[in-house]
Amino acid sequence: MSFSPLIRQLIDSLRVLPGVGQKTAQRMALQLLERDRSGALRLAQTLTQAMEGVGHCQQCRTLSEETICHICQDTRRDDTLLCVVEGPMDVYAVEQTGFRGRYFVLKGHLSPLDGLGPEAIGIPQLLARIEQQGTFTEVILATNPTVEGEATAHYIAQLLTNKGLIASRIAHGMPLGGELELVDGGTLAHALAGRRPISI
Amino acid sequence: MSFSPLIRQLIDSLRVLPGVGQKTAQRMALQLLERDRSGALRLAQTLTQAMEGVGHCQQCRTLSEETICHICQDTRRDDTLLCVVEGPMDVYAVEQTGFRGRYFVLKGHLSPLDGLGPEAIGIPQLLARIEQQGTFTEVILATNPTVEGEATAHYIAQLLTNKGLIASRIAHGMPLGGELELVDGGTLAHALAGRRPISI
Repeated sequence: MSFSPLIRQLIDSLRVLPGVGQKTAQRMALQLLERDRSGALRLAQTLTQAMEGVGHCQQCRTLSEETICHICQDTRRDDTLLCVVEGPMDVYAVEQTGFRGRYFVLKGHLSPLDGLGPEAIGIPQLLARIEQQGTFTEVILATNPTVEGEATAHYIAQLLTNKGLIASRIAHGMPLGGELELVDGGTLAHALAGRRPISI
Repeated sequence: MSFSPLIRQLIDSLRVLPGVGQKTAQRMALQLLERDRSGALRLAQTLTQAMEGVGHCQQCRTLSEETICHICQDTRRDDTLLCVVEGPMDVYAVEQTGFRGRYFVLKGHLSPLDGLGPEAIGIPQLLARIEQQGTFTEVILATNPTVEGEATAHYIAQLLTNKGLIASRIAHGMPLGGELELVDGGTLAHALAGRRPISI
């Protein structure tokens, strides 16, 4: 015996959510039907509104329902610093640190095996943005510390250095609260190589 | 800095899903916006259809978009056996075992502290259903093996015994694949008390 057609459709559709498999989707569908139909209808409405209303900022390419997002509109930000990240989620992560420069959001990272070259992830737009603004002196490459993220950062760094800009990379090392015996060898090697004198 | 209004609304609405907190909702919202807008729109549509179209079966009270669900409509089922469960999800769990009798779905379990008495969980409707059908000889009480589930089963058993019906309770014991040293004392005590002779 299986679920009725409408419930089965709902379960299938819920699996579009990241990290939601068959069992979780079943639990979600039945719980919404049993406990919170008005919440589910509200969710349906905001989903539609967001999918139709949210686009990308024309300057930094983060998700935004306005043509220019409110970070790009903010005139109190530092126009000499540009932070390049892989996705919109990273913008929010960097914002939490108190960084108050500008952003540019790539479409992921270079991945030649998947056919993702510089054009696919938006590197020409990044260069155009830097040229257009004209005030950036340093570009912080905050792509993820993965093989692809590193390759992307190095590729962009080379292009920028040729143009006489400072390209910097976020530091690798021990995460706060981590333990030496648990961290991987690569990270520890980076932490040792990047050691700094303690000033007292 | 925070998310733009539409994205923030979407994140809030996603938290209606069971087991989804702030971080997961953020990840879901941004991933849908970045990767699968058509899937998200399809989800919005099926959510609306299901919330508006799915009701409860008038006989067994499970979730169904028809007045009488397809289990109740099925004429090949055993009309002498009725299985009483706490919710629609339990119907699907029992169906997996190959059980082919009838069902009745309570609205949860008795919980006097939350003001949930026999009427609130649908016990009068259960008795009416048994009377109306007239063919049930055994009622299997498959409420959860929790304190409230046990209390609910015992309460119903008493009512049914007064009416001359056989009320049975699903067995408690070791789950298959479990380990004696890991199982709790109460379960092990039930497993010992419910031991059965091995026939060779």
